[in-house]
Amino acid sequence: MAAAAPPPPPSDVPEPRMAPPETAPIGHPVFTRIRLATPLDVPFIHKLIHQMAVFEKLIHLFSATESSLSSTLFLSPPFQSFTIFLLELSSYPIPPLLSPSPSFTPIEKTFNFDLPLNDPEKDAFSVHYGSDQVVIAGFVLFFPNYSTFLGKPGFYVEDLFVRECYRRKGFGKMLLSAVAKQAVKMGYGRVEWVVLDWNVNAIKFYEQMGAHVLPEWRICRLTGDSLQAYQNANV
Amino acid sequence: MAAAAPPPPPSDVPEPRMAPPETAPIGHPVFTRIRLATPLDVPFIHKLIHQMAVFEKLIHLFSATESSLSSTLFLSPPFQSFTIFLLELSSYPIPPLLSPSPSFTPIEKTFNFDLPLNDPEKDAFSVHYGSDQVVIAGFVLFFPNYSTFLGKPGFYVEDLFVRECYRRKGFGKMLLSAVAKQAVKMGYGRVEWVVLDWNVNAIKFYEQMGAHVLPEWRICRLTGDSLQAYQNANV
Repeated sequence: MAAAAPPPPPSDVPEPRMAPPETAPIGHPVFTRIRLATPLDVPFIHKLIHQMAVFEKLIHLFSATESSLSSTLFLSPPFQSFTIFLLELSSYPIPPLLSPSPSFTPIEKTFNFDLPLNDPEKDAFSVHYGSDQVVIAGFVLFFPNYSTFLGKPGFYVEDLFVRECYRRKGFGKMLLSAVAKQAVKMGYGRVEWVVLDWNVNAIKFYEQMGAHVLPEWRICRLTGDSLQAYQNANV
Repeated sequence: MAAAAPPPPPSDVPEPRMAPPETAPIGHPVFTRIRLATPLDVPFIHKLIHQMAVFEKLIHLFSATESSLSSTLFLSPPFQSFTIFLLELSSYPIPPLLSPSPSFTPIEKTFNFDLPLNDPEKDAFSVHYGSDQVVIAGFVLFFPNYSTFLGKPGFYVEDLFVRECYRRKGFGKMLLSAVAKQAVKMGYGRVEWVVLDWNVNAIKFYEQMGAHVLPEWRICRLTGDSLQAYQNANV
């Protein structure tokens, strides 16, 4: 067995284990956080849903108001009924929440982009934490569903939306992954959502995330006057 | 104007306004009731789901147990989460529930069939109310969903099932109508469910009930190992 080499002479100059500040980091850091929405976020949520209806060319079906959202959301603890994750975003580290929910630890991730993200609607979607300002970039709304074959709940994702200036950056994947991670944490069996059959880009994206599209099932919907007709029906 | 004819002489024989007892009612009366399921019904629910899996030739996907059902159902008040209506049936009037839920008044309806309904599994699906015995003929499992465009909840019907010997009698319609009626009562905006695109009889039945089938939407499902992969994902 060879004798151990003598230790190197001590030096006052530290090893360059980190890149010197003048060369790093190239680009534009973006700090993101996924947190539970609260009743205070309803004005943002309403604007996001409205943008989604415009984007989907379905504004004629949009009738939600801040009031209707407030009276139907946040009535149950997170994850037990309708639940919303918001995606927050800032060029600076996002300060911790003053009143974090015991049900969910926010998910934080730092991105580094070549170009700055230009947000023409920054003011309309700004949240202030003391002197810090972050913007709401998107949301996902989901709630428990149930598989009788599995004998256990899952999550159904009703909406996944990222504002236009923040698309194609991985934020949608981040939001959907957060729901999947929460489902696993709760021992749930499935995460499901729907997609339009002609939206091949979305289908490709979802398949890359591990989902498969069920080709044979169709949604049946009873709504409007056809639903109201059951009010006095002798069933 | 001719004089009025004199009245007929009084008679001790009453007019035959009702059919005499010996000729009415023709057929076999069936008394039915839709009520909320309780934890005591789990063994019936498990057997019904198992029969549904066999009927749909999907028994390989069936892994629910009485234990998994018990630990995931009945955790919230009726209609706030997963909710089950059971259809009870008897040849005699069904006695009232001893502990009716304040959330739901059972729906009762009497049918009259030409032939008796022969139930080869009567014993396995019998509920005893004192000395009275009724059978469980089917169930519907549903839970709230949410439309962000409407800004209000709806109901999603996960399962609608009537045991084979009770099919094509209007019982499926009765169960689905009860969910629709409850949705209207609660001010909800929609009732939705899914159907296989090749099941033309079911589609026709649902359309007759006022539903329309959405042709373009497809279900995406993330489950099994693909879902578990998100446990430690850096989302």
